[in-house]
Amino acid sequence: MNAPIGIFDSGVGGLTVAREVFRLLPGENVVYFGDVARTPYGGRSKEIITAFTAQDIAFLMEQKVKFIICACNSASAVALDEIAPNYNVPMIGVIRPGAEAAVAKTKTGRIGVIGTNATINSNAYARTVHDLKPEVKIFSLACPLFVSLAEEGYLDKEATFLIARDYLQTMLDLEVDTLILGCTHYPLLKRVIADVMGDDVTLIDSGEEAARTAYRALADANLLNSQASQMPTPRGEHKYYVSDVPEKFTQVATRFLGEVLDKVTRVDITRY
Amino acid sequence: MNAPIGIFDSGVGGLTVAREVFRLLPGENVVYFGDVARTPYGGRSKEIITAFTAQDIAFLMEQKVKFIICACNSASAVALDEIAPNYNVPMIGVIRPGAEAAVAKTKTGRIGVIGTNATINSNAYARTVHDLKPEVKIFSLACPLFVSLAEEGYLDKEATFLIARDYLQTMLDLEVDTLILGCTHYPLLKRVIADVMGDDVTLIDSGEEAARTAYRALADANLLNSQASQMPTPRGEHKYYVSDVPEKFTQVATRFLGEVLDKVTRVDITRY
Repeated sequence: MNAPIGIFDSGVGGLTVAREVFRLLPGENVVYFGDVARTPYGGRSKEIITAFTAQDIAFLMEQKVKFIICACNSASAVALDEIAPNYNVPMIGVIRPGAEAAVAKTKTGRIGVIGTNATINSNAYARTVHDLKPEVKIFSLACPLFVSLAEEGYLDKEATFLIARDYLQTMLDLEVDTLILGCTHYPLLKRVIADVMGDDVTLIDSGEEAARTAYRALADANLLNSQASQMPTPRGEHKYYVSDVPEKFTQVATRFLGEVLDKVTRVDITRY
Repeated sequence: MNAPIGIFDSGVGGLTVAREVFRLLPGENVVYFGDVARTPYGGRSKEIITAFTAQDIAFLMEQKVKFIICACNSASAVALDEIAPNYNVPMIGVIRPGAEAAVAKTKTGRIGVIGTNATINSNAYARTVHDLKPEVKIFSLACPLFVSLAEEGYLDKEATFLIARDYLQTMLDLEVDTLILGCTHYPLLKRVIADVMGDDVTLIDSGEEAARTAYRALADANLLNSQASQMPTPRGEHKYYVSDVPEKFTQVATRFLGEVLDKVTRVDITRY
């Protein structure tokens, strides 16, 4: 089935998920939508995030996608479960894949999760982890400054270390052995976070896990692109859509993806 | 004339302007709109900021305001001049008041301005300063992280000092004697900014200057609330509207204003 996979995010962060999808599924066509005109979602209310997410999904449906990955943790946490049943295209978020990987990794049964205010306040990771394994202890913490630090390229400066130490001291005190990076921006700060948390703590990148889950789900449902099974695999087409002018997105995206974008088109997302 | 004064901003930052208006004009009725569902504007394009600003103004017009203060520097810099001529209510932004105050203060003729990417890239402060006094030298610098630091309450932490020193070193090297705080959030970081810049540099708060300009403009145009001239002055009514759920706004606003809010109502701003 050569219909595209749809991936959406509040902005550029979901490109870390797209990159993993491209790596695992090089022959798939992909449509990416980034809501850069209204990014970030993480500080907004459930109601507003749900309204924005519904529009993002309606846009992807119009692109006739066969599968949708909600790469945004905040949208996955507060909006996806409400909207997904309205469509007959399979959709996954990043919460469950991240939770599953953490439960599989932890040895001490003490897991931490960090994310935006919306994600943490929703308690979505804690609920999912408990459903998977009730005896696991999970501790949640919002780290709202991490998003702007990542977007501004403050990836390994002294100030970023100080803020990370400030935020993560609680996680150190709680002696978690596994930490879920519950926001697509956080993998960009992985070096700093790993440095503060120490070698004994495993970091889980929910976006990476979601890409793997998508791969298995597409294979199981027989939805992989049949044309992609030829050898050598022809590279799928990657289309990008954004809700503000494309220039800044294109620039940041090149850093996130490590490749030059095929084409970026602007969309008036409020029409959906 | 007891019609209200309208003040709008991309979010909570404009409350620093509202506070100054309340102080100077205690008898005036005020309607404040904060576009918290789409904040911050400063990293977005001119096109999107103009579209959002047009909706903010249309909403205030529906409230039958007699005067509009655009408290958002980004909107003042890139959108206001295009939209204001469509209405017959007087409107002011924060750029000109800030520029005028800086030109009046500088002794060496070297002025710095800091703000969001949108404000700085627009060159609006530099153009206005040059129109006022062509021989003045003005240097512009975007400090995008300051907004999140202020919103997260990182007002005088070591990390904030480090980031401020990083950003402002250029201004020190350029030996400005006056620095315009060209974003409503920056006055919250005044202590850190003053510490980095030193005692010899005067900081200009554009929001405070805009409130003073509004006061003079209302008096000149004979638009002050006649009921407010009674002694003792009856306190004007202050109404707040926001585009996301009011809880977080109410909480942050109390910090910005130092007073408990009368009433906060949610508005679907996309209808305007």
